[in-house]
Parts: sequence; C-alpha cells; structure tokens
Amino acid sequence: MIILGIDPGLATLGYGVIESNGDRRRMIQYGTLTTPPREPMPQRLRAIFQGVNQLMDIYQPDDVAFEELFFSKNITTGMAVSMARGVAMVAVVERTPNLYEYTPMQIKQAVTGYGGADKHQVQQMVRLMLNMKEIARPDDAADALAVALTHANSANAKHLFKIQ
Amino acid sequence: MIILGIDPGLATLGYGVIESNGDRRRMIQYGTLTTPPREPMPQRLRAIFQGVNQLMDIYQPDDVAFEELFFSKNITTGMAVSMARGVAMVAVVERTPNLYEYTPMQIKQAVTGYGGADKHQVQQMVRLMLNMKEIARPDDAADALAVALTHANSANAKHLFKIQ
Repeated sequence: MIILGIDPGLATLGYGVIESNGDRRRMIQYGTLTTPPREPMPQRLRAIFQGVNQLMDIYQPDDVAFEELFFSKNITTGMAVSMARGVAMVAVVERTPNLYEYTPMQIKQAVTGYGGADKHQVQQMVRLMLNMKEIARPDDAADALAVALTHANSANAKHLFKIQ
Repeated sequence: MIILGIDPGLATLGYGVIESNGDRRRMIQYGTLTTPPREPMPQRLRAIFQGVNQLMDIYQPDDVAFEELFFSKNITTGMAVSMARGVAMVAVVERTPNLYEYTPMQIKQAVTGYGGADKHQVQQMVRLMLNMKEIARPDDAADALAVALTHANSANAKHLFKIQ
C-alpha cells in the first residue's frame, strides 16, 4: 500500500510517500511544496492545489494521511494555513475518499510510543523506521513522513482487527 | 460584463450574479451553497469546490469578487471558514485570473456611500440598485450581491481611469 503523508501549510507544505507492506515500511520520496509570500493568495493556493494534484498523479497513493491542524495563537497564520489545508484536502478528495487525519499527539504516540515525545525523538524514530541514513529535512517533510507512518501502523491495526 | 460575487463560508456560501453594463446593473441570480455539519470536512470542502465549479460553468463570469474574511473571535469557526474560502478561491483561479477581494468596509462604502452603514441599509441599497422587489434572502446571498455590485462600481472606476 502506498501512503502519502501531508503536513499542510501555505508557505511550505511537507509531503512524504511510503510503501507499507505488512510490518515493512519503505520510504519512497519526501519533500516540500513552497509558495512565495510575495505572490497573491489565490495564486499561492492554486500552486498548492496543482502541486498536490501532481503528487497524486505521480505516486497514486492508496491512502492519504493529513496532520490535523490545531489551535494557532496567531489567527492570521491560522487562517492562511487553514486555506492551504482546505485546498490540499480538496485536491485529494477529488481523487480518492481515502483521506485520514491524525493529531500531533496521535502521531507522536504511533511513532515513538509516547504522546509527549519531542520533535527530535519523532524525527529519529521516523529515520529508523524507514531505514534512512539521515533525518528528513526540512521539518515539514519529516512531519509528513511521520503522519504517513502513523497511518501505516493504524491501517495495519485496523487490518488485524478485521481478521479477528 | 458578468460578475459573480461570493461570500465564502463552510455551512453556507452565498453567491450573487449580476450583469454590469456601463452604469446599468442587472441581477441574474443569487443563492447559497450549503453543506451539512454532520458530513466529514473533506466531503464538505469537496461539495463547495464542485458547487463553485458549477457556478463558473453556468454563469461564465468575467470577474469574480470575494468578500474578504476578517479576524474571527472564534478561532475554530475562523479556521473552518478559511478552509472553505481557500477551496472556493481555487475553484475560481483554476478558471480565471480575474479574482478580486473587497473588505466589508469597502463594500459598505461602495454600496451605500458610507463605511459605517448597517446590514439593513446595505441590503436595501442592493435591492434598489438591482431593481429587486424584495431584499435578497438569506443574508449570505445579499452579501454576495453586495460584493458583486462593489466590484461593478470599482471596475467601472478603473475603466474610467483607463480612458483618461
């Protein structure tokens, strides 16, 4: 199963693509889509829409996992990220209904076994689980791989439950 | 010139379509797109995306005018509306670069000549300017007609400046 993880953002959207097969996980690709702040908002949103469409075209993911957005202290940033998140979601659901969301706490729990893990611990576990030589950079890409792994583990669990 | 006005929202998105020809304005259609709160967010966003696409198909607007979203005290509502607004914008800019935004103050000023006008005054002026028998209902549709009228006046002004 191919899983696309997305850490949504307006200036930087992180993505991570993994293959999950039973207990095995393989990193396929990771990176970011970026939009320049000097561009008008509609053009930035369009770039994100088209970028996510391209990711869907290239990797043909079976499932897509989003990091859930939480309360932002800065309401202007929160609104900008929300617009980008909505646009990325639509690009996905126009192709597949298999869209899932995980909270930061669920991601930490799934990747490190501890909901209070710090960013570095999560990144190290992502590196180990995907057998990567170095931590994924930038953070948004590492976060996207983490949410993809979270879904892989969760989907596996669902699968096990189904068997029982 | 056909102008589509949009008052973005997640539960209710208002739209208003007018024809503007020199000083003349004609109401073509107005209404709302609604999404049920019990639906999952991705499906609601998809409904908005497809709904705005249909409006673009049906009315083939030359220009599209959005009411600009402002600081919301309720951050959860602000984030939901932002997602819907981003999705509506992308549906538009995938078709035309002619997307414009107006603040509530600009709209009040353009429609009533007074930036401090109340909602009822704006709705009455929209009704008069479009030669309608009754005020447009619901409010979101009336607001969408108001932003379309604002753009009509502003586009007219730009046109006049161009001539000089």
